[in-house]
Parts: sequence; C-alpha cells; structure tokens
Amino acid sequence: MTLLIKNGRIITADQDYLADILVEGETITQIDTLIEPRNEIEADEIIDASGKYVFPGFIDPHVHIYLPFMGTYAKDTYDSGSRAALLGGTTTLIEMCCPSRDEDLVEAYELWKSKAVGISACDFSFHMGISHFDEDTPEQINRIVDDGITSLKVFLAYKGALGVTDDELYQTCKVAKELNLVVTAHCENADLVAQLQNELVAAGKLGPEFHEPSRPVTVEASGVHHFCTFLEMTGASGYIVHTSCRDAVEAAMPFRARGVDVQLETVIPYLVMDSSYAERPDFEGAKYVMSPPIRDVSHQRYLWDAIASGTISTVATDHAPFDFAGQKEMGRPPESDFTKIPNGIPSVQHRPVLLYSYGVATGRIDLHRFVELVSTAAAKQFGMFPRKGTIQIGGDADLVVWDPTYKGTITDDTRAMDTDYEAFEGFEITGRADVVTCRGQVSVRDGIFVGELGHGQLVPRNRGG
Amino acid sequence: MTLLIKNGRIITADQDYLADILVEGETITQIDTLIEPRNEIEADEIIDASGKYVFPGFIDPHVHIYLPFMGTYAKDTYDSGSRAALLGGTTTLIEMCCPSRDEDLVEAYELWKSKAVGISACDFSFHMGISHFDEDTPEQINRIVDDGITSLKVFLAYKGALGVTDDELYQTCKVAKELNLVVTAHCENADLVAQLQNELVAAGKLGPEFHEPSRPVTVEASGVHHFCTFLEMTGASGYIVHTSCRDAVEAAMPFRARGVDVQLETVIPYLVMDSSYAERPDFEGAKYVMSPPIRDVSHQRYLWDAIASGTISTVATDHAPFDFAGQKEMGRPPESDFTKIPNGIPSVQHRPVLLYSYGVATGRIDLHRFVELVSTAAAKQFGMFPRKGTIQIGGDADLVVWDPTYKGTITDDTRAMDTDYEAFEGFEITGRADVVTCRGQVSVRDGIFVGELGHGQLVPRNRGG
Amino acid sequence: MTLLIKNGRIITADQDYLADILVEGETITQIDTLIEPRNEIEADEIIDASGKYVFPGFIDPHVHIYLPFMGTYAKDTYDSGSRAALLGGTTTLIEMCCPSRDEDLVEAYELWKSKAVGISACDFSFHMGISHFDEDTPEQINRIVDDGITSLKVFLAYKGALGVTDDELYQTCKVAKELNLVVTAHCENADLVAQLQNELVAAGKLGPEFHEPSRPVTVEASGVHHFCTFLEMTGASGYIVHTSCRDAVEAAMPFRARGVDVQLETVIPYLVMDSSYAERPDFEGAKYVMSPPIRDVSHQRYLWDAIASGTISTVATDHAPFDFAGQKEMGRPPESDFTKIPNGIPSVQHRPVLLYSYGVATGRIDLHRFVELVSTAAAKQFGMFPRKGTIQIGGDADLVVWDPTYKGTITDDTRAMDTDYEAFEGFEITGRADVVTCRGQVSVRDGIFVGELGHGQLVPRNRGG
Amino acid sequence: MTLLIKNGRIITADQDYLADILVEGETITQIDTLIEPRNEIEADEIIDASGKYVFPGFIDPHVHIYLPFMGTYAKDTYDSGSRAALLGGTTTLIEMCCPSRDEDLVEAYELWKSKAVGISACDFSFHMGISHFDEDTPEQINRIVDDGITSLKVFLAYKGALGVTDDELYQTCKVAKELNLVVTAHCENADLVAQLQNELVAAGKLGPEFHEPSRPVTVEASGVHHFCTFLEMTGASGYIVHTSCRDAVEAAMPFRARGVDVQLETVIPYLVMDSSYAERPDFEGAKYVMSPPIRDVSHQRYLWDAIASGTISTVATDHAPFDFAGQKEMGRPPESDFTKIPNGIPSVQHRPVLLYSYGVATGRIDLHRFVELVSTAAAKQFGMFPRKGTIQIGGDADLVVWDPTYKGTITDDTRAMDTDYEAFEGFEITGRADVVTCRGQVSVRDGIFVGELGHGQLVPRNRGG
Ligand SMILES: [Zn+2]
Ligand SMILES: [Zn+2]
Ligand SMILES: [Zn+2]
Ligand SMILES: [Zn+2]
Ligand SMILES: [Zn+2]
Ligand SMILES: [Zn+2]
Ligand SMILES: [Zn+2]
Ligand SMILES: [Zn+2]
Repeated sequence: MTLLIKNGRIITADQDYLADILVEGETITQIDTLIEPRNEIEADEIIDASGKYVFPGFIDPHVHIYLPFMGTYAKDTYDSGSRAALLGGTTTLIEMCCPSRDEDLVEAYELWKSKAVGISACDFSFHMGISHFDEDTPEQINRIVDDGITSLKVFLAYKGALGVTDDELYQTCKVAKELNLVVTAHCENADLVAQLQNELVAAGKLGPEFHEPSRPVTVEASGVHHFCTFLEMTGASGYIVHTSCRDAVEAAMPFRARGVDVQLETVIPYLVMDSSYAERPDFEGAKYVMSPPIRDVSHQRYLWDAIASGTISTVATDHAPFDFAGQKEMGRPPESDFTKIPNGIPSVQHRPVLLYSYGVATGRIDLHRFVELVSTAAAKQFGMFPRKGTIQIGGDADLVVWDPTYKGTITDDTRAMDTDYEAFEGFEITGRADVVTCRGQVSVRDGIFVGELGHGQLVPRNRGG
Repeated sequence: MTLLIKNGRIITADQDYLADILVEGETITQIDTLIEPRNEIEADEIIDASGKYVFPGFIDPHVHIYLPFMGTYAKDTYDSGSRAALLGGTTTLIEMCCPSRDEDLVEAYELWKSKAVGISACDFSFHMGISHFDEDTPEQINRIVDDGITSLKVFLAYKGALGVTDDELYQTCKVAKELNLVVTAHCENADLVAQLQNELVAAGKLGPEFHEPSRPVTVEASGVHHFCTFLEMTGASGYIVHTSCRDAVEAAMPFRARGVDVQLETVIPYLVMDSSYAERPDFEGAKYVMSPPIRDVSHQRYLWDAIASGTISTVATDHAPFDFAGQKEMGRPPESDFTKIPNGIPSVQHRPVLLYSYGVATGRIDLHRFVELVSTAAAKQFGMFPRKGTIQIGGDADLVVWDPTYKGTITDDTRAMDTDYEAFEGFEITGRADVVTCRGQVSVRDGIFVGELGHGQLVPRNRGG
Repeated sequence: MTLLIKNGRIITADQDYLADILVEGETITQIDTLIEPRNEIEADEIIDASGKYVFPGFIDPHVHIYLPFMGTYAKDTYDSGSRAALLGGTTTLIEMCCPSRDEDLVEAYELWKSKAVGISACDFSFHMGISHFDEDTPEQINRIVDDGITSLKVFLAYKGALGVTDDELYQTCKVAKELNLVVTAHCENADLVAQLQNELVAAGKLGPEFHEPSRPVTVEASGVHHFCTFLEMTGASGYIVHTSCRDAVEAAMPFRARGVDVQLETVIPYLVMDSSYAERPDFEGAKYVMSPPIRDVSHQRYLWDAIASGTISTVATDHAPFDFAGQKEMGRPPESDFTKIPNGIPSVQHRPVLLYSYGVATGRIDLHRFVELVSTAAAKQFGMFPRKGTIQIGGDADLVVWDPTYKGTITDDTRAMDTDYEAFEGFEITGRADVVTCRGQVSVRDGIFVGELGHGQLVPRNRGG
Repeated sequence: MTLLIKNGRIITADQDYLADILVEGETITQIDTLIEPRNEIEADEIIDASGKYVFPGFIDPHVHIYLPFMGTYAKDTYDSGSRAALLGGTTTLIEMCCPSRDEDLVEAYELWKSKAVGISACDFSFHMGISHFDEDTPEQINRIVDDGITSLKVFLAYKGALGVTDDELYQTCKVAKELNLVVTAHCENADLVAQLQNELVAAGKLGPEFHEPSRPVTVEASGVHHFCTFLEMTGASGYIVHTSCRDAVEAAMPFRARGVDVQLETVIPYLVMDSSYAERPDFEGAKYVMSPPIRDVSHQRYLWDAIASGTISTVATDHAPFDFAGQKEMGRPPESDFTKIPNGIPSVQHRPVLLYSYGVATGRIDLHRFVELVSTAAAKQFGMFPRKGTIQIGGDADLVVWDPTYKGTITDDTRAMDTDYEAFEGFEITGRADVVTCRGQVSVRDGIFVGELGHGQLVPRNRGG
C-alpha cells in the first residue's frame, strides 16, 4: 500500500516547505518536490494537499479513557475515544493508567492496556500511575518499562485513594532517576483540598461554583513547589500536568533556574474558558468542573503568554468524559454537593482546532510553535521522537492535512465523544483536519472517520525523553 | 552542479533520520533513503556521510568583522573571518554594523556591507546599529530594511560613542515595533562603568584583572532591566546579546513572565572560561578581556543550565579579534590601563566544536538542543527560517557533515582567525566539521578550506523573526 | 514655663503605659505615675489626658511648601502650612528644597530656609535637592550639611528641570556615602514619561484620567531598580519617596535581600484613594493628580499590607497644594492637557487622622506601628531620634494628646491648608489631636490652633540616620 | 524593697537618654534625670550605671530545658539554665514544651511547667507543642491558653515522633486563628530528611560532617513554603523558628508580600559559626550538630543582612545542651552515625554578648536594632509587651546594666550551662552584663550570679502578639 500526499505545505516545529510525501506501508519513505514528474511513482492513493498544511500527527499526552469513579466509569472507550481523537488530528494518545492504592501495578497495567489493544483506531501509550510503593514496586516498574512505558504518574492530590505519601514520592522519583523515566505529577496539596471542601460544604456552599474556591491557586502552587523539591533532591526529571495558573508556573521557575529538569503542561480548557463557566446556573456549571479548576481570566491570559514564550511546553487535554445526566448530577445540590461531581471535561476531539483557532488564527502563536505544543514537544518529552512528532523519512506516517480556510462552529452534532453534552458548544473555529493518517492508514477523509478500530498500536517509548 | 550526500544521519532541531540528500545548485531538492539505487541519480559529486551527522549550517548571530577601535581595527576581514567561520561549520554570519553617533546610517551600512560583498566566502547579514536618532532616522532605517536587514542594534553602554540616550532608545523601539523589527541590545549601564573605571584606575588598579570589577553583574542586570522596561512600554521585540551572568538572566525573567517578547543570547567564552582567565599573569589576561566580562564559575554553571532549559535561546560568539602585540597591549600597565584594552576574543571558528565538546559530549545538552542553539533559533529569531537553520527540501544547501568520533586539541596551528594568538589554545575537543557546504558549494572538505572568496551573499531576511 | 500632662496613656513605638509627663521649657524632664500626689509639683499648666493617648509629635518627612511651578507657586506658606500640620498633630516637617538645575545650591538652600525661619509655627528641616553636580558641589553640600541638613534629594524624573543625569546621580551617591547622608529619590524614568505623555496628547487623550497611563507602574519600577543599582554600586543609603505600587516595592526587595540599605516611603493618598479619583468628571479629577499617580485599588491593598509588615517604613504626604481655580485649571482641555496640571494634593493636615481612621480603627495596624509610621521611623531615618520620634526624658516636648473616641467628617470647613478645595472632603474619621505641643508650647488646644508663628526651629539633624 | 539605678544611658528599641530609674518592688515606678537631688529618695539599694547602657531584660523566645531524647535528657535544668540565662542578661525564657504524639497535652504542659515553677531564677513561658490533633485537642488548648500560653509549636520535621500530619497542621492553624494564637514552626520536610539520612548512612557517610548534607537548604525552604501555604489558607499568624539560610528566607518573602503574617527567627550559632564547625576532626564536629544545620558562610552573611534590614525579626538560641561525653558520642562512628547525635548547642548564656560583639561592635547593627532583636520583638510577638521588652513606668523591672567597654574571651571557665564543653570557647567578646535585675531582684552583680532560685514566674501572655 502506497500513499502520495502531493503539493502540501509541510509544517513542523522547524520546517516549512512545499513538497510531496511518499508513504510506503506505515512509513514515510520519500519527500520530494518533484516526485511525480520525475519518478512516475505508482501510488495506490494520491491525496492532493494543495493550499493546505501538512502537520505531523498530533499527540495528546494526557487523557483518561478507562476511568472508574465512585462506582461509575468515564463515558468513552477506545472505540469512541480514538475516533474522536483522530477526527481532531490526534494520532497518538498517552493515557493515565491510574490504579488505586491496593491494586497490583502489573495487573493494573495489563487491565488498562487490554482496554486499548485491538480496539483503538489510533496509537497509544500510558503513563504508569504509582499509587503506593513497597519493596516489590521497583521490579514491577521494570516489567512495565520493558513493555515500552517510560513515564510514571503520581498524584499529590486524592490522598488515600490515588495519592502517594512523601515517602512513596521520594522512592518513585529515585527509581525514575535510576531507570531514566519521567515522573508526571498532578500537583495539588491533598489535605488542604480536603479541609477546604469540608469547610465549604459545612457552610452550605454546595454548587459547582464552589469547586474553584475549594482548590485555590495557592494549593496548586504548593503542590508544584513540593514536587519540584523532590525532583531537586533526587535528580529525577519531572513533568507537571495541567498547570492552571500563574502561581503554579511561578512556583516552578526558580527550580528550573537552578537546573531542575521540570517541564510544564497546560490543557486546552484553561486556554479558552474561565472560572465563570463553573458558575453557570441550573447546575450547568458542573460540566466545567475539573481539577485543578479553570481559573479567572487573568490566569488564562498568563497561560497564553507562557505557551508562546516556551515557559509551558505542551498543551494537552486531561480528557475525562462524564455525562451530565446521571454522572455530573451525582454532585447536584441540595442532596449532594460539588465534591461528588466527577471531574473532567470531554475535550480530546477539539484540542488542536481550539489551539489553532484561538492561538494561530489570532496571532498569539505561530505555526511552528503550534506544532511543538500539540505534537513535537510531547514526542520528545516522552521518548517517541523522531518516530513521531515530526515529518521525516523513516518516521511513522502520522500526518494531518489541515485546511486553514475552514470556518465553522463546534456543536453537539459534531461531537464524537460519548457524552451527553458538548462542552465547547458554540465555539467558533478556524481550520480543520481534512485528512488524517495513522501509520499510513487514512483514518479521516473530508473530516469523516474512515479508519479502522484496532489499527492502533502501543508505541514503544524510549527512556530519557 | 549536483551534489549527493549519502548515508548521513540527519539531525535538525526536530529530526533524526538516515537519508541521502540531493543538492541541485544552491538548494536541497530531494531527501530520500533510497535515492541512488532507485533513481540512478548522476550527481557531480558524491560525499559519503556514513557514520556521521548532517547538521544544518551553523549561524553566528553576533560577530564583529569590520570594527574600528581607538585608531586601530579588529584584525579579521571577511577573507580571514569567513574562512574561519566555515572551517567551524558556520555558514552564515550576522555582523554588528556599528556606526558612531555622527555617522550617517545609510552610509555606514553601505560601508560595512562593502567589506563583505564580493569577499566573504560564507553568507552574511547585519544588525543595523542605531547610535543616534533624529527625524531622518526612520526613513534611513526603512531604506536599510528594504535591503533585507530586519534587526537593529543598540548599545546601552559606550555612552557618547555608540550608546543611545533613553529618548533615542524609546524612538528606536517604537520604530522597531512599527516595522516589525527585532531590537538587539548590549546591556550595561554606561555611566556606572565609566565611574567604576575611573575609581579603579585612580586607585592604581590597572591590570586586566580589574576589567571584571569595573563591569560587575549588577551593572549588566541594570542594563537588562532598563532595556526590558523599554520593550514593555513600546511593545517591541528584543534580543539581549552576550548575557554573561545569572543576575542578568533573572532581571529579564519577570518581563518574559508578563509577556514581553525578549530573547537571550550567551556567547561561547562564558560557557568554557571563567574570570580567572583575565587574571593570568604578565598581562596575558588581556587576551580574555571582553564586555560584559567573563564571570566566575558559578555563573558559567548557571548559563549551562539556562541554555539546556531553553531560558537562553542562542549561543553566539561576539567574535572581535585583536592582536595581543600592539593592540591588546594598548592597555598594558604601568603606562596604560585595562580600559584601553580592545575588547574581544577571537572565537568565530571554534564556537560549534566547543559547544559540542563541552555540551553534547558531556551530556549537558542533546543533539537537537545543540542544533537549536547554534543554528535554528537564530534563523527563526532573525527571519532566515526555514531557508536556513534546518534541512528541508527547497532550503539552502548549507550543510555540515560532522564527524562525532574526532578527538583533538585546539592549537595555534589550527587557527584561521587573523590574530597573533589562539584564545582557546589547549582546549581538548570532540567532533569536527568534516565537510561544509554553503548554498551547495563545498567550502570545507576533510577539515580544509576549499571554498571560494566572494561566494557569500547577503541573506535577505524577513521581518518579525 | 512648666506643663504637666496628667493621666495619659503614653504610646510610643515600643511603649504603652499610664503616666504623667512633666515638661520644663522645651523638654520632657520627668515621667511618673505619681508626680502630683508625691511631689506637689507646681506646673504652670496642667492638661488632663485621662482616657486619651499621648503620642510623640508626628513627623512628615516629605512636604513641599515653597514650590515654584510653571510661573506660579504652590499655595501654602509656612504660615498656613505649619498651622495645618500642627492641627493634625504634625510637629516637624521635612521640606523638599528643590533648586532647578541652574540654581546655586547654597543660595537655594538659604532661600528655602528663609521661607520658614521666623514664620513656621512647627519645627522643620529640609532634604537638599541636588539637581546638578559639578566640582563645586561637594563643598556646597558640606556647607549645607554643617547647618544640620543630612539628607539629599534627587529626581530621576523631571529631566532637564530638576532631574539628574546618571553621572550626577553616581556622584551624589558617592558624596552621600562619604559624608554619611541619606539619598532620597523620586523614582520614575523621565524619558519614558515624556514619551508616553507625547503619545497620549498626540492621540487627543487630554484629561486628568490620562495622567496615570502616562506614568504606569513599569515606569516607576524602572526608576526604583535604577536607583537601587546606584545605591548598590556606591554603598550609599537610600530612601525612596512616595512608593505607589506593588511593582515598585518588588523592584526594591531583591536589593534589600542583598544588603542594600534602602527604605521605602508611601504617602497617605495612595492608602485611601485609588485611580478612579482622577477619572472624576468635569475636570474634578485634576484635584487628584500627583506623581507617581494614585493607582488602582489592588495596589492600595498591597500598600496596606506593606506598611503593616514593615516592608514600607514611613507614611508621609508629599503635600503640594494648588488651587483648583487658576492652577489645576492650567491643564484643562481642550485648550490644555493633563501634563500642564500642577502635581500635588493638599494633605499635610490630615495624614495622621486618615492613617489612624483607616489603619488603626479598622485593625490593619496597631497603635505602635501607627507611631512608627507617622513619627519614629522618620526620626530615626533622618537623624532626629531620640530627640524627636519618641517620648523620653530629655527629649523635645513634642506631644500629641489624642482623643480616640472622636468621630467626625473631613469637610472644607475644617481645612487649614490654603487651597480652594479639600481633597479629602467627606472622609469619615475616627480620633483627633486634641492637644499638640511643639517643644513645650501648647500649639493646639481642643482642636484649635493656639500656637505661635515663628516658634518653629530648624532641627539640626545627625548623619547616618 | 526599692532600687535606684542612677546615671545610666537608657537604650530601648526607640529611646536613648540619660536618666535614673526607680524600682519599687518588681516594678519601675519612676524615671527621672533628677530623682535624687530633688526628691531625696531613700532607696534600699543604689546602683551606679554611669558610663553604662541600661537595656530592657533580654528575652530568649526559643530554648529547650526539659528535653527527653533517645533515653537520655538534655543537660540543663531550670537551676543551671536560668542562672546561665541571667548571667548573659536574659531575664525571660520561652521554652518549647514538646510532648510526643501519644502524650496528653495538658499533662505534658503540667509536666514541663513543673520543671520550672519554684526552680527557675528568671521568668519563663512556653510554646505549647502540638504533636497530634484530635477532637479533644481544641479543649485542651483552651485550658492551656487559660494559663497564659498564647503560642503553639509544630514540627514539620521529626515525623512520627513530634511531627504533625498536614491534616493536623491545618487543624492547628485553624484553632490558632480562632483563638488568636501564634503558630511557631520548625520547618524541614521530614520525609526528605529521613531519605537523605538513609542514603548517606548506607553510603558509609557516618560522621557529623554529613549532618548538613542530610538536611540541605532545599529541605528547609520546602518546609517554609509548606508552612506559609497553611498560614495563607487559614489566616493564622506564624513564626518560623531557627531560619538558617537564604533559601528559607526567600521562600517566605512572597507570602509576606501577599499579606501573610509570618515572622522569622534566626539563632545565634548561625550568625557566628559556619558549616566548617561540624567538619572538625575527631568527632569534635558533633558539638555543632543542630537542626537545621549551620550553613556555609554565604548564608551567614545573608542572615546578618536580614536581621539588620528587619527581614528577620528575632535572634534566639534554640538552646539544647548535651554533653559531648556519653551524649553527643551516641552518634560516634564507626559503631554509630550522625543521625544518633543529639541535636543542639548550649547557647542560652552567650546570645546577647555574641550579638553585641559581632553585631553592634562591628557596626552591622545599631543599639536600637540590637534591643529589638534580643528583647522587644519577642515581647511584642509573644504577648508580653509592654510589660517586658522595654523600659517604662509600670513595666517589670527587668533591667540589664551593660558595660560596653568590657573585653574578654569566652572560655570553659565562664560557662554556667551544665554541659561538659563550651561551644563558643575562644570567641572574643566586647561588652558584658554587669548587673541584671529580674522583676526588681538583683540577680547578677559584677557579672556574678546573686539571684534566687524559684524567683522566676510564669509570665501570663496576651493573645495576638
Ligand atoms: Zn490530574
Ligand atoms: Zn488527568
Ligand atoms: Zn556588546
Ligand atoms: Zn558585540
Ligand atoms: Zn516626587
Ligand atoms: Zn515630593
Ligand atoms: Zn527545631
Ligand atoms: Zn528548638
């Protein structure tokens, strides 16, 4: 099977040129301005990319698909989730594998993996959650690393359930340092959140608008400072997921200035929404409850600057989809309260187009920075580069043919994620993934999913980013 | 004329793959793993790059070639200077065009340009120095911009000679904002330097070891804070040349955090030398006098962290070559003093190999960061990307075939710069530019200059970086 | 002449006790809980302070009385100004002596002094403005220091008129270091203000509401950073007048952390007003035009924290009174613009009661901090302690008997300052200076001025704070 | 009993004058320049203070007297400890009452108190250690507060033994906020210390020189950031004991800038010793093992600046005396290791003279700042002011007649503390407490203890500092 993408404007983090791309099987084998006339290549399929950009396939380094929560589950499977991802141009997902404290790590890993293998239409990998640490843990980690998983995940929040003690955090960082793995971390001080939740609920402050006050920026900055201290003391490399506010970024900066290797991620809801969303009446605010919470607009502005200047290196989603009916409603007052609202916003589908529309189209970031933020930086950070994250001979043929002239609006009709609402409904967008290939397979054509469930593979990742 | 570089490992800021590169004329036209067997290309010259890296040609964004100083001139011409650059793998120079306060800007630009056109073996451009500002200045800048010069240079130091007043600085930033140019700046407070020089000399502190105390880190940080304030007030984009110390970097950080577009450069001497060099006996310290001065080793360590983490975006040279005999000696005590020592270290030849040896080979930075620091970031910052700074079809065939296994020592015998001493004598090195091409012309082969004087061209640059 | 103040609660920066105070002539000679019963002292006057506080006389370290401005003069003389000061409890003024660049320093000092001697009802001293520096300046400063003037004043703003060059600033700091004087500084970057004024006026933005945008916080922070750099390089002690915003305070903090001796002053308008005052319609905003400008309310909150925590050491006024009619109106659009509005707010009378009402009565600061801010810190900083700034045997009998139960409102009827408007009209107040003595003379009784013009003396001050 | 101290120069935080002080019973009743001649007072004892300073009695807000440790006890009792304190001029001690996690708070308080009552020759109070928190804790705290104890103490270090969980820390801060108590805190991250200790010991690094590396500055700064976060979230007032380094101070500064009420203490060993002391051969370094450890000399310099500028408000001791023989030796390698060395340096006797000699006599701080640091600030912070911490009518007659001309050397012969070594042996000193009174009782005369065991009383303290 050969595929020729002709006349596209190839845009990577550090390139911009017109060329034809020849794909043989799963791999890019030739890039040439003159492929056709000179070589008379017989390609099985030819896609005309005239007037369009060709981007490397996008990578979402922070999603949840299989996610048990309070007796229920997040709504997407790899069936719906990978289709939604591909429709947006995302060809690789890194899912959080989140065992609870008493689960066996290897068994958990196998469970999470079994939900993807043979089902996912796009490629995938996992951050391995470390929710406890005992003498068997290093050996278990080693076995999982042998399967190509080269990053760990810790929660400083959700103490008792997913969160680690300081002792466990230290051991995890030590092992990561020894094995050259990246430690990703959800940074919020668990005890402070618990206390503030108790006080708000005791004061009758039950609605989703009290979610943000229960997890103020100080609590997030505290988690960041704490995590960075452990990185500094152990020499491990770290990655802070879903940075939501100026205070958190500024807590990390002095550590970086001292040479601590810590990278920052933000997620798309923080860039296009603000705290007023969770204040919407009639419990609609619950749709926008995630942690850390979406902050006020001054933080949103700060985050745009931080991604433009390189202070923050990646834009992910923290995709975690729950229905409004039956799920988000578990936290509906007066019977219940905001602490019972499942956290998360369905967003894996729309991240690229939102970043393009509100970043590139508005002039806040240029095309190369866009590619770095949605693809290249994550590929490098998580050991998939240069196989993924760029367009080069020998690389995976994960390609997005992007129409920069497309104008539209996000509506519930365009939603491929399996929730009963569209969080970004009404957002006007510029640009669209016309054609998306995943390792040579055309998975989206004319904005329609034409891929194959089960085509996706576990990406074996290198250590050391 | 066609050139085939076969079997190299292509390394750019965001790529790493094995391929053949076909160059037709000045341009890369094809990149393929299979060029020869399938296409039977008849190339005029074939270079075997097996086991070697192929980098994009290096760019030195801060050099001085034509440099009048106190009745004498810096030693290199574009003849010696461009040969030295190419031998190190540098295919493009951006020279500081530094008119004095009373020179006409356009005339100065034409003078500086005339020293390069028809002589330089490598490509070149200029930062246009603004040493005064009157009502004719915007029109003059416009004419120079029309020639492809899209960055300005101001000195906060050297008041009365090259330095600008605050009023002129503001006007310069305003014009830069309007025309979408980058303002580069030498940031030291001129009056403080003058005062401290007077005091040291009056106290009989005459030797080169007093050069650093006459320009302490506080003076540089003050310049940085001042310049950033003007960027913030005008909205202009800035680039701070030769950042030498932690204090200067930290002065810029809060402005960046607030969204001011300011990038930082450091230069190779700061990364491999320290303040003890200028303390060498028998006036030998004069060889290491440059401004800002080389700092103590704690700053050196800080700068390595800063280039690794991305806080500093480029590594240049501030190449400014003077003979020891007759020139550096103008400042020899007891008849004279350190303030009369011409400032500068001959370094345009060795920047890449020093950064590779003390950065890549020691594990401080990886190959991709190396390419960004010596090539890609400067190309992007100064409007030459993607024509230069990467390896892509349609781009200039500026290529460096790098032998990572080479081991050697810098000696005066290897020096191509036209000074009577080699500042880096005795430095052990790893790696070498075996072959260097400049727009398709093989200019270095087996580490020997085989290029052609006059081949170099003025690179027309885009605005807005 | 003897005076007995009985039964008061004596409050100093570090004391709080009930006692009787015996004043003989100008001096406190005895403090005793039991003076009357045991000693049968025959005092010429006995004041009952039961239920009241006795504070040390307040010191305003930053006022303007004689102030030529654009062909006119500030409205107060020492006649009206000292009466207004005493009515508020202020027994000592330090006036800015502000010669223009071409005035002789000693002549200027004698001129300013002649406006006070024999007229002022309260004590006084001067900060000696240095508006140029030549070889005669050190000798002139020496002569003025011999008269008991131990602090200098520089303007970084108002370039060309009052402002100094960097060279002059350095020389001034050097002399101050040698003579152990304090350098006080108005910190705003002059050129930036001039440029921003030009742009706003050119854009037709003429009203007083554009005064603040013409001097943004960045401009003030830049001045602070610049001044602190000069203090660091010379070792001089500095005092930054009228700090208006968080940015300015934060610019100074790293220098203090490195051991630079720099103290900060704020002034009462910044603590009780915000930028909306200058936006009042019908040009009324002009009444609230001062420099640096009054900032938005977030800065006001920050300043309260900074005075409570000790980050800022003094609260002064920058009293500079101009009539609305004829004076402030010089800047009335459309014929004129905000740059022509004389800067300043009449405030010398109300500083203590406003700080008491909005600080002590609201719980933001305690009684001891209040005394430090309005009296003790200035006495120490400017070499008048312990003669002034505290209540001790042998000290000047500058005393304020304060009624903490008084409630009232500031109106134009209570105004003693010689302007045609009362800037603080309508402010509700708590507390009042019932009795005020200045070196033993009862100058205020029952809130009525009963002092004597010409009673005030020049306070000889010590060096080194 | 009456006592007349004649002709002294009275120095408080805000006063400096010559006067006679009359003490009747325990209280200062009269301060007069003319007491004797005019009143013919018949005092039972007259002390001539001509040529001497009279300071308010010094307060040491951080000592340990009763201190169980690993089966042994710190060496001083209130017998030896209070005598040593008084000999140095310290008239009030605040001891850390440190129950272990399983001790009843009220019982512990009574135990600690019983060690002092009837024995101590000087006054005393306690910080109540909170080592666990359950539903009975608030009531227990209330009972202890009723006895005049208005500050709590938490350990972030020493987890499992004395340290609190984050949950308990939050509850403690909440109660402190409600009851208007100050929370004092030992700030080091417990888990990090434990891990680093394990690693060092496992690596065979056993000597006292490895104590500092086991508790690096990052670990202390982390504790400070953590504690300040809890203060910010609860609104409580905090006081960080024994701040040892720049990193810790800088961690607290942004919180203070945001209005968090947190004060800093340093202790005398940090100001006159450095990390080389713990590196002394033959296990002598063990004498200088305390936590946080004594840092390198750059931190020492920083701390002097911080106490001079007011960034740090108090200088205490953290007095914790252990014999070298038998006690410090419990951690002697090769059988044992540094983690078994009892922490602490005997220092309660020498704090004032060391701060005077190396601070006042060298010009780093002035007399008023000295008094604030060793007396006034602690009195205000901990609710004993103005009864203590100043010299005023009605205040406790805690007085120090200080001979500023005395020159001497600290030797083991002058030691009053009950250890078998003198940590400050060989330190040259300037000044001496000639006479010390504690509530009117002459306790030291000519540098000799003449006081009375059991004279000391528990000082009832006010809430809210
Ligand atoms: Zn999370
Ligand atoms: Zn997540
Ligand atoms: Zn320069
Ligand atoms: Zn240069
Ligand atoms: Zn001013
Ligand atoms: Zn003023
Ligand atoms: Zn402790
Ligand atoms: Zn302690």
